[in-house]
Amino acid sequence: MDLLGDWWTPLVLREAFYGIRRFDEFQHELGIARNTLTDRLRRLVDEGLMEKRLYQTEPRRYDYVLTEKGRDFFGVLAAMSRWGDRWLAGEEGAPITFRHEACGQDVHAEIVCGGCGEPLEPESVSMRMGPGYPDHLKRRPDVQRRFATG
Amino acid sequence: MDLLGDWWTPLVLREAFYGIRRFDEFQHELGIARNTLTDRLRRLVDEGLMEKRLYQTEPRRYDYVLTEKGRDFFGVLAAMSRWGDRWLAGEEGAPITFRHEACGQDVHAEIVCGGCGEPLEPESVSMRMGPGYPDHLKRRPDVQRRFATG
Repeated sequence: MDLLGDWWTPLVLREAFYGIRRFDEFQHELGIARNTLTDRLRRLVDEGLMEKRLYQTEPRRYDYVLTEKGRDFFGVLAAMSRWGDRWLAGEEGAPITFRHEACGQDVHAEIVCGGCGEPLEPESVSMRMGPGYPDHLKRRPDVQRRFATG
Repeated sequence: MDLLGDWWTPLVLREAFYGIRRFDEFQHELGIARNTLTDRLRRLVDEGLMEKRLYQTEPRRYDYVLTEKGRDFFGVLAAMSRWGDRWLAGEEGAPITFRHEACGQDVHAEIVCGGCGEPLEPESVSMRMGPGYPDHLKRRPDVQRRFATG
């Protein structure tokens, strides 16, 4: 989670999905302090979610575009926005809506199991120790208990 | 986004989905400073994602359980974890895996359109001004341009 910094990061990514590329546009849309924005963009570039592209040479100017890793974050934003629409929107409704051009309907993202296609509910999902679980923790009694249901 | 504070919040929620309820257990699992944890739990209670429940009267002790609003955040965590497995896991694989008990398969969440069931890709989604878009912004020329595709 740490790599994302704070909650400005998904907002910056959201703007990028809307087609925003330039520093000043991000700044205008988000009303974020310039030094905070500089930091968040640098972090997104360092972590490989965005890349800087030179669009002018004199003076040198860059814009910021999503990489594949960044574009793949779209699902997380869609899930956040579904949750926000359900729990945070006022009586007047969602501030922004999305249309799925492929089917022409307004989008309400659903999070489903890739295997069977059924919606994922916390009750129907159990957690296992994965192959990348840290070795030094695997044998701790409390960790073993926690994963004992496996 | 603001209501969630920082990225500790989804980690606290994740632990709650794993069945953690008590302050000391959250603290132990996350290795988080006690005052940070106190603040994040209070915020989650204030925002209605968790509630405090008295489980012992002398001395009075509370545990923290997810509300319906909090349980519904599961989809966001599932989307985050899918993204993390794809982009952040080392060669050894995911630290934790999830099994969908309903179908018996390991879960890889997919984010689909609730209307047609097809996976949501940023290219196929367009943004519209929704009914709750702030009135004072609706007539701004740059805002109108941004939503002109509608």
